[in-house]
Amino acid sequence: MKNFLTPISSIALILLCPLSFAQEQKSLAEKLGYAPETKLLIIHADDIGLAQSVNEASIRAYEKKGISSGSIMVPCPWTNDFARYYREHPQVDVGIHLTLTAEWDYYKWGGISPAGEISSLLDENGYFYASVEEVGQHAKADEVEKEIRAQIERALALGINPSHLDTHMGSVLAKPEFVQIYMKLGMEYKLPVFAPRMILMGMPEKMREMAESEFVLVDRFFMLNEATPGVSWMDLYRVMIEKMGPGLNQLIVHLAIDNKEMQGVAINHPAFGSKWRQNDLDLLISKEFQELLKEHQIQLVGWKEIKEVL
Amino acid sequence: MKNFLTPISSIALILLCPLSFAQEQKSLAEKLGYAPETKLLIIHADDIGLAQSVNEASIRAYEKKGISSGSIMVPCPWTNDFARYYREHPQVDVGIHLTLTAEWDYYKWGGISPAGEISSLLDENGYFYASVEEVGQHAKADEVEKEIRAQIERALALGINPSHLDTHMGSVLAKPEFVQIYMKLGMEYKLPVFAPRMILMGMPEKMREMAESEFVLVDRFFMLNEATPGVSWMDLYRVMIEKMGPGLNQLIVHLAIDNKEMQGVAINHPAFGSKWRQNDLDLLISKEFQELLKEHQIQLVGWKEIKEVL
Repeated sequence: MKNFLTPISSIALILLCPLSFAQEQKSLAEKLGYAPETKLLIIHADDIGLAQSVNEASIRAYEKKGISSGSIMVPCPWTNDFARYYREHPQVDVGIHLTLTAEWDYYKWGGISPAGEISSLLDENGYFYASVEEVGQHAKADEVEKEIRAQIERALALGINPSHLDTHMGSVLAKPEFVQIYMKLGMEYKLPVFAPRMILMGMPEKMREMAESEFVLVDRFFMLNEATPGVSWMDLYRVMIEKMGPGLNQLIVHLAIDNKEMQGVAINHPAFGSKWRQNDLDLLISKEFQELLKEHQIQLVGWKEIKEVL
Repeated sequence: MKNFLTPISSIALILLCPLSFAQEQKSLAEKLGYAPETKLLIIHADDIGLAQSVNEASIRAYEKKGISSGSIMVPCPWTNDFARYYREHPQVDVGIHLTLTAEWDYYKWGGISPAGEISSLLDENGYFYASVEEVGQHAKADEVEKEIRAQIERALALGINPSHLDTHMGSVLAKPEFVQIYMKLGMEYKLPVFAPRMILMGMPEKMREMAESEFVLVDRFFMLNEATPGVSWMDLYRVMIEKMGPGLNQLIVHLAIDNKEMQGVAINHPAFGSKWRQNDLDLLISKEFQELLKEHQIQLVGWKEIKEVL
């Protein structure tokens, strides 16, 4: 077992949501109408809007109930395509995957704000930087705010009623002042947001206090970071499912159809690449995985439902 | 026959190239080493860089000698992918498909210049307008120049040695002052450019004189504008091939693999859509089409060869 425990993230997470919720005595499970000790699980597809292949796979997973939530990368080329689907299926649980990076080698994008107004976020070609480290080095807080606010406003203009905010590659968590903006926008738009606990621990004390008083820690999230040769996808995920406990769990998945488009996007990146994403999709919609969830008495929930009870 | 003659454009074209060439007595065919009455034909793939599907189809057509030239849309998401291929295959004949429009419903792009510097080219979301008419209504000449110059410079920076300039949907031909910029940039970068004769006829006299003295009319181009139910793709193209005469002919084609990506890009647009583009590809690389060219003693040439003899 040890062999394939290492590649799996199991990081305690801060689920940030308004104070009103923190002050309630009822557990989240109870607020959602479940027994207090229920193992709630959000299965969350990242990167919607990235490519046609990702939209198609995410829609398939939504429709087969393989995922209970997802989030969209507003600056990416296939955002308008997903928004069209969403307008025809407004019950879909989709948040905004706030994006400040463009990590692929040959498939790039920049911000949606005028480049001259967010120049600290962009490389010499007008694309976002590839890494969170570069965002941390170059980005100015006011330009981060301008761009992520524009992404939220664009999603609203496209007719999307977002269920939550999260952030692509954790880029909005690159610096404490960005985290502060992120929390502020979550409150302003009345949207739940989240961040790994480790980020909060690196925060200046005042800010941490604010975060701790305004928001409430919910539980843990899980994400496959590395495949292990010889170990089946199901076995990699089984370990995570087995580790889920009462309260709110989140499993982050990366979906796509393994085709030329996704292979081109993810060239040179086997991790989170085209085959990887097809494996995630195949697993989530498999009978075996559905049965595994049942066997462990796991209750799927979405951000949308959580937002509604806050 | 009449039924399927109507949908085919057969427009006399101005191929703009430097005066030095115009003053030569030798025909283009002779300069290229062919007999003076040779029917030269450029088979030209538009829209490279638009989508993975388009890049894959264009590369297949280059490698099977189904096309002799093509041009790349620098602002589109798959430009860097094609540039990677080009750097490994620098013999490929590719020009720059100067782009000022984004015509698809849900798959959009803007310019590569900072939006604040080309605001007359962009809609409220920062995308190019969908139609040439809107470009004509809104675009300021200095911003057109800034953006198309940026597209040329970006292609050069990506390691592309362009064979020529042309323009997506004719958008750079929307107004005489834009045509002037287009010609000026062709001269500055020593690249052949072209425009339909009808554009030159609408030009102010002085400009037309300049164009006529600086550049030389070469011949005709052909492009399928509309499919005709019940008429095979081969029959539609046969009519065009039969109309080609001595001198320089250009056939513009639109290639893609008919898949979900291209179907998503071209949703609601059967003309120049996904199936259409697959038909073009299948036709060009078919034995029957290759034999048709032989039968009509047509000699394929590229813009690259023409540029070299100018």
